Amino acid sequence: MFGLFFTVQPNAQAQTTAADSALIRSIYDEALAYGESYANLRSLTKDIGHRLSGSQSAFDAMNWGAEVMRGYGADSVYIMPVMVPSWTRGDIARAAAISEKTSTPLHVTALGGSVGTPNDAVIQGKVIMVKDVAALDTLPREDVAGRIVLFNRPMDPVLINTGAAYGGAVDQRGNGASAAASAGAIGALVRSMTHALDTLPHTGALRYKADAPKIPAAAISTVDATWLGRQLETNPDLEVSLQMNCRAFDDVEQGNVIGEWRGSERPHEIITLGGHLDSWDIGEGAHDDGAGVVHTLEVLRILKAIGYTPRRTLRFVLFINEENGNRGGKRYAAVAAEEHVHTNLRHVAALESDAGGFVPRGFRVDGDDDAAELVRSWADLFDPYNVHQFRRGGAGVDISPLKELEPRPTLLGLSPDGQRYFDFHHSSQDVFENVHKRELELGAATFAAAVVLLDLHVPNSDTAD
Amino acid sequence: MFGLFFTVQPNAQAQTTAADSALIRSIYDEALAYGESYANLRSLTKDIGHRLSGSQSAFDAMNWGAEVMRGYGADSVYIMPVMVPSWTRGDIARAAAISEKTSTPLHVTALGGSVGTPNDAVIQGKVIMVKDVAALDTLPREDVAGRIVLFNRPMDPVLINTGAAYGGAVDQRGNGASAAASAGAIGALVRSMTHALDTLPHTGALRYKADAPKIPAAAISTVDATWLGRQLETNPDLEVSLQMNCRAFDDVEQGNVIGEWRGSERPHEIITLGGHLDSWDIGEGAHDDGAGVVHTLEVLRILKAIGYTPRRTLRFVLFINEENGNRGGKRYAAVAAEEHVHTNLRHVAALESDAGGFVPRGFRVDGDDDAAELVRSWADLFDPYNVHQFRRGGAGVDISPLKELEPRPTLLGLSPDGQRYFDFHHSSQDVFENVHKRELELGAATFAAAVVLLDLHVPNSDTAD
Repeated sequence: MFGLFFTVQPNAQAQTTAADSALIRSIYDEALAYGESYANLRSLTKDIGHRLSGSQSAFDAMNWGAEVMRGYGADSVYIMPVMVPSWTRGDIARAAAISEKTSTPLHVTALGGSVGTPNDAVIQGKVIMVKDVAALDTLPREDVAGRIVLFNRPMDPVLINTGAAYGGAVDQRGNGASAAASAGAIGALVRSMTHALDTLPHTGALRYKADAPKIPAAAISTVDATWLGRQLETNPDLEVSLQMNCRAFDDVEQGNVIGEWRGSERPHEIITLGGHLDSWDIGEGAHDDGAGVVHTLEVLRILKAIGYTPRRTLRFVLFINEENGNRGGKRYAAVAAEEHVHTNLRHVAALESDAGGFVPRGFRVDGDDDAAELVRSWADLFDPYNVHQFRRGGAGVDISPLKELEPRPTLLGLSPDGQRYFDFHHSSQDVFENVHKRELELGAATFAAAVVLLDLHVPNSDTAD
Repeated sequence: MFGLFFTVQPNAQAQTTAADSALIRSIYDEALAYGESYANLRSLTKDIGHRLSGSQSAFDAMNWGAEVMRGYGADSVYIMPVMVPSWTRGDIARAAAISEKTSTPLHVTALGGSVGTPNDAVIQGKVIMVKDVAALDTLPREDVAGRIVLFNRPMDPVLINTGAAYGGAVDQRGNGASAAASAGAIGALVRSMTHALDTLPHTGALRYKADAPKIPAAAISTVDATWLGRQLETNPDLEVSLQMNCRAFDDVEQGNVIGEWRGSERPHEIITLGGHLDSWDIGEGAHDDGAGVVHTLEVLRILKAIGYTPRRTLRFVLFINEENGNRGGKRYAAVAAEEHVHTNLRHVAALESDAGGFVPRGFRVDGDDDAAELVRSWADLFDPYNVHQFRRGGAGVDISPLKELEPRPTLLGLSPDGQRYFDFHHSSQDVFENVHKRELELGAATFAAAVVLLDLHVPNSDTAD
């Protein structure tokens, strides 16, 4: 560490060259003319399908990923064991709006981690609608007790960044159930996290607080949530019924799938890249995060195909359990921290692809000023590929625990275009057919180009060798 | 003209302000929160459908467009008459690959403007495959005479700009039939212009040379073209049959639909914006160019909604006959040239949206250095909206004849992301369902913002007032 300031001039390695430019061109050519990311995604989504942590299909996906890495010539492939939660959605998720004369079915599905309804039986109650958790806290307890709370705040349509719109609405999904329970509610319905007006429930994780009763909570489609909200205006006595038979089980040992390609010049310096192998248990996890998985595998294939020799050691990681615990990401960082302390292995950078298989726009950089400047210096190199965003921001859930390492590695998240992401996210429509071949391939190439540029230009972790 | 250099400093009006920034934000907010472009596109594509020049549905679309413009408060709405071609595809488009024992149907459709097969009957012949027109010219006449030519050059997958890949392959569609006929061929099949491997024939215009016999020509799907090419490797005696009953009729008077909003400060200076109302007669012309039509209408609606007062006169033009003749665009420019000569009306700028309803990336600028510099100066203003391309290039078929005007107006084409465009282009899949609401709305907002920035900052055409 102490040698760093004496030997590396700021941005000294940020200079890009014509050789970089030619290298990047060869990466894109390989991805677009001979790409295998699309075929791999078809295999992952169709041969295996969705793959929630703890499920048999998640085991199958681990084996699948390890096999592809071996086939692409990783020096070594291994599993890093991780204990993951096990939860099943069950086969019952029914809800209806019930007035004196009519019962109208609602499109719902359990939020991930929800308890079932007591004894798997139907619960029924009047509905109180709120826009957010804070609004719930202002209500008298008698307005909530015994009721089902409808959290009905839409994602803000005027935010250009759909991820920001998601971030601005998702607290009701994560925290709504426990907040409702604390106020005496018997259940919660949460408006699905999508801009689209559709009849698909979009699931996602909830977090129960330890000091609140666990009540069942379901995602309700935006069309149903909007309709229900309007019904309540004229019929505040409307009741809603809910029945779900989800279950939690003991944790299961699964793991991160790791392929390693040893560096030629500085093998003790590690660049990790990855996506997450697990997915929600509806749809096929195609964009979330099948795309990131096949991006990661495709980087290995492309760099071998074009004859690239990495300076640093590249670790290709298919993380487990991003969706409901991030235990794979946390475990990976804990092991890396041990390496930092007890060996000379140093993470200099990590990259993540977990924002879909859409046309790539750029990167989110999580690092110091020099790191941000390094990435911004790539603008001209990426301009021919319409990759233009070099913004600071969170790089991704799986790799974010790595920022606790000392010295701190540069973290980079691939930023695909986000306008269509939440149409599919966590829903039955996150399937292979909704991923576009060229968009996926361009993402893989962009990811690979960033790996190479970091390998070539990120500052050394030390001057010891 | 001569006064220009004395009164307008280069880029003096290119300064953008915080007021511009706020104005643009209000445009995007309006488009995303209260947009009508998506509903208008549904109406155009579902109530009317496809609308080839000369057809009844093109008349219907003209009336529809004029009605929407009136509803949105244009000062005046009128039709500029244009004589357009009339051609019908007919109800027969059959082809098959025929060997000794089998007859395999091929997915084909007539290229726009093609003659039918003689007497609407089946023709049949051996197949000669070439990659392009130049390759055909190198063949001995006996290899071509009496045969059906298969033009089978794919769009280049490694070009990032799909429009460039299209431009690099489309000569075989436009010129292939006459080149084949000149060498004695009896028919032509042209590989569809798409990156996708699909079974859809993608149509588009051909141009017959006056000195070559007119032979029937059809688009063949990429899957069928690839398959047929492989069959020919092992079975060069394979024959293909073709039958089509397309017809050409006398020209029909239709017209450009024009809405005018008179300028408050410099009403004699005109900014034209538009897309084309006609479409091919398969699919619904949703991306091509329903999107441009509703973008244009939405600019009018948005600017009224936010209380904008245009300095110049804005002309909203729904052009006729872009697909097979561009007579609408040529007629519009001829009228504008008359205005330049005989009145003080001056086009200072024109904008076109004819590249689909995808997420907007920027603009292609066709103008002098000052114009290019002006548009580049918008980079910071558009950065929050992920609009980043400010490149020189052709602005669009409909407005391109306007560049003959003196003084030359600045031409601007909206550049949406192009990766998915050719999946749908000129095929049965160019339908409303394949247009994304937010992407369409973002395109409309970006188009509107450019109109306003040109209105505020493009140099005056003269100093006379």
